[in-house]
Amino acid sequence: MNKINIGLIGCGEIGSGVVKILNERKTLLKQKIGVELVLKKICDKNLNYKRRVKINLGLLTKNVREILDDPQIDIVVELIGGINPAKDFIIEALKKSKYVVTANKALLATFGKELFDAARTANKNIYFEASVAGGIPVIKSIKEGLVANRFLGIYGIVNGTCNYILSKMSQDGLSFAESLKEAKKKGFAEKNPRLDLEGIDSAHKLILLTYLAFGRLIPLEHIRVEGITHISLSDIRYADELNLAIKLLAIAKKEGNKLDVRVHPTLIHKKHLLASVKWEYNAIYVSSDLAGKQLFYGKGAGQLPTASAVVSDLVDLAKDIKAGLFRPTLEINPDTSVKLLQDKDNIESRYYIRFVAVDKPGVLAQIAGILAKFNISIASVTQKEKDRAKVVPVVMITHEVKEGLMRRALERIDNLALVKGKTVAIRMEDL
Amino acid sequence: MNKINIGLIGCGEIGSGVVKILNERKTLLKQKIGVELVLKKICDKNLNYKRRVKINLGLLTKNVREILDDPQIDIVVELIGGINPAKDFIIEALKKSKYVVTANKALLATFGKELFDAARTANKNIYFEASVAGGIPVIKSIKEGLVANRFLGIYGIVNGTCNYILSKMSQDGLSFAESLKEAKKKGFAEKNPRLDLEGIDSAHKLILLTYLAFGRLIPLEHIRVEGITHISLSDIRYADELNLAIKLLAIAKKEGNKLDVRVHPTLIHKKHLLASVKWEYNAIYVSSDLAGKQLFYGKGAGQLPTASAVVSDLVDLAKDIKAGLFRPTLEINPDTSVKLLQDKDNIESRYYIRFVAVDKPGVLAQIAGILAKFNISIASVTQKEKDRAKVVPVVMITHEVKEGLMRRALERIDNLALVKGKTVAIRMEDL
Repeated sequence: MNKINIGLIGCGEIGSGVVKILNERKTLLKQKIGVELVLKKICDKNLNYKRRVKINLGLLTKNVREILDDPQIDIVVELIGGINPAKDFIIEALKKSKYVVTANKALLATFGKELFDAARTANKNIYFEASVAGGIPVIKSIKEGLVANRFLGIYGIVNGTCNYILSKMSQDGLSFAESLKEAKKKGFAEKNPRLDLEGIDSAHKLILLTYLAFGRLIPLEHIRVEGITHISLSDIRYADELNLAIKLLAIAKKEGNKLDVRVHPTLIHKKHLLASVKWEYNAIYVSSDLAGKQLFYGKGAGQLPTASAVVSDLVDLAKDIKAGLFRPTLEINPDTSVKLLQDKDNIESRYYIRFVAVDKPGVLAQIAGILAKFNISIASVTQKEKDRAKVVPVVMITHEVKEGLMRRALERIDNLALVKGKTVAIRMEDL
Repeated sequence: MNKINIGLIGCGEIGSGVVKILNERKTLLKQKIGVELVLKKICDKNLNYKRRVKINLGLLTKNVREILDDPQIDIVVELIGGINPAKDFIIEALKKSKYVVTANKALLATFGKELFDAARTANKNIYFEASVAGGIPVIKSIKEGLVANRFLGIYGIVNGTCNYILSKMSQDGLSFAESLKEAKKKGFAEKNPRLDLEGIDSAHKLILLTYLAFGRLIPLEHIRVEGITHISLSDIRYADELNLAIKLLAIAKKEGNKLDVRVHPTLIHKKHLLASVKWEYNAIYVSSDLAGKQLFYGKGAGQLPTASAVVSDLVDLAKDIKAGLFRPTLEINPDTSVKLLQDKDNIESRYYIRFVAVDKPGVLAQIAGILAKFNISIASVTQKEKDRAKVVPVVMITHEVKEGLMRRALERIDNLALVKGKTVAIRMEDL
């Protein structure tokens, strides 16, 4: 065997990056692998898309059959994103004895079981380094570098859009809306950023990280997911005064025999490394029993960082194909000490809560009374300056409390006549 | 093949960790690899060393021949450290067709060429993830995760002893001597920490990182190496006032077609992630052309983190052995755009310099005159408070200057009658 043939399905931004790297690093990669990686066919529904790379037009096709039906193609790279038809293409590729490389977190997070089963049945692999945290080799690190470890917790800043917006608000004092606008202008937010802003994209990536670290594919609907759309500039400022930073964290951690998996804005101490992860950057903080605490930091998106990860998967697969070797899809082993998923209502955290109350005697007593009824104890209370409308923002930090109790307390508080607007509650995490 | 036999040479702290992991994770590792990793023999010169792990005494021997002469042993793990007899053991193991795993940075940095050549001749590999930054999978990340990248620069905090001492001085205001004492007490400094404090250990690791990233094995004597023994508490404080932190950095970066490789205390901006790497932790900041800037952070030493890395090498090798596969030792490809090693005298940096001068008119004019003669331009000057002895510390920040010029200017300055003691000069790095 002196070459390995690749079929690329989807040649937009990331796909073009893969084409570029395979062209420009042809010799380097051949030296590393011992065989040539040949891009045999590129399928895209838009042949006229303006790609910023040189593409041999003879390779381009609109017809995916030219890839799926070609018995000489060894590896299919799926970069069209979304569920359909990506899922069908991957399953068919596996059935036709092709290896698969994908960056499609939404698909893997939603249909992972079906896809990984299909790979196992076909004795082929699905590699997906590019699907989490772009160019950072965090999947390889968890799977291989930390292979002997049992994992205690994963804490990831895995959505560049949200991290950029939170950084913009905190560093430049812009509102959420202005920061989002800025993110769009810089290319760090999509036209329709709903999946990012609401935490769904982070949850997709978290599902994959949890699978790698704990061997469980958790369905999205079992995960508490909260986005950043309700985060206001004043909360960022009040947090700052408390030496805290607000980050959208994707968290999977073991608490006894329970796995606690969630995505939400989280207050962390400003001195923690994760608080220094700014702008569009991603980072995954991994706690494991042998290696201890580690952080993997870098660009989580972008053409070349993401394509760099796709190509590293191609190289790993090509080495094995060259050697005539099949490695079981993922060598994922469930952590048998994990028995249960933590019930959403039982997730325990400390909380930052901010009410806006009418400045009248007794309001604080009413609020404190409700919290006491739910056994929520208060660590600190700060009354902020009164605004012109004669309402006072009050910031409280609580001790650990179960989420269900907190929710019920907040419902009661928001019903008080003296409390204006919806109370903001942000979980805190001691890392 | 249903098992892979391992011979362990050197069973001190790290070796015991490897024994512990192989015992306790036997089932997990077998599931991941598909074959059992069997520790067949353990050789140590001290059979009575108090190991904190359960060891089958039947495996222990003082006679290394029981490992090197055993044709059933597939992998030799060398953890005795130092040059001799480690080097002979590794070369003999390779000649006898055994794979080698080692954590011996001093040996690889000094005799890398000879050892890697021997591995190539024998069609066997030397794996050494544990030799740089303990449990952090940085070697795997550079070699495999970033396989398609060309590297622009590597900036590592790779010596936990130095980083602990600098952190202690900066966080707790202790002197160098007191901080060293504390480091020893906590087990973060060896009894004789010379190699650590003088930067030699960092340089050894830098040689390996440079080999991986740029494909060149640079001899130690071609590298500018400066340790931290001359760093005083006042420099840390003055730096802090300038929003700078002092870190011992191991640097390898490409400047045009030159490779600039050095180890020295370095002033970096406090906001940079590397400045947040504190205490005994290590971190490697990697800049590459596709993936951009990445940081790998974690424990750089300690029994289990280091043993975790050794075992990850064992697993990688075992998978290949099981598959009957040989992968060329390192797939290292020289970066052909690098033509020359930067001459030590031509290394350009901005500098922090601190003189202690007698408080008399004209002293600053004399110093500035010398700097001007060497074409060194000054970005800022701060005169600190006078001490009781009527001498004044003066801190200057220069613009970029070649090291050779700076050294000659400092010699002249130190000869001035009004300048007391040796002037401190610390390079700055814009990351």
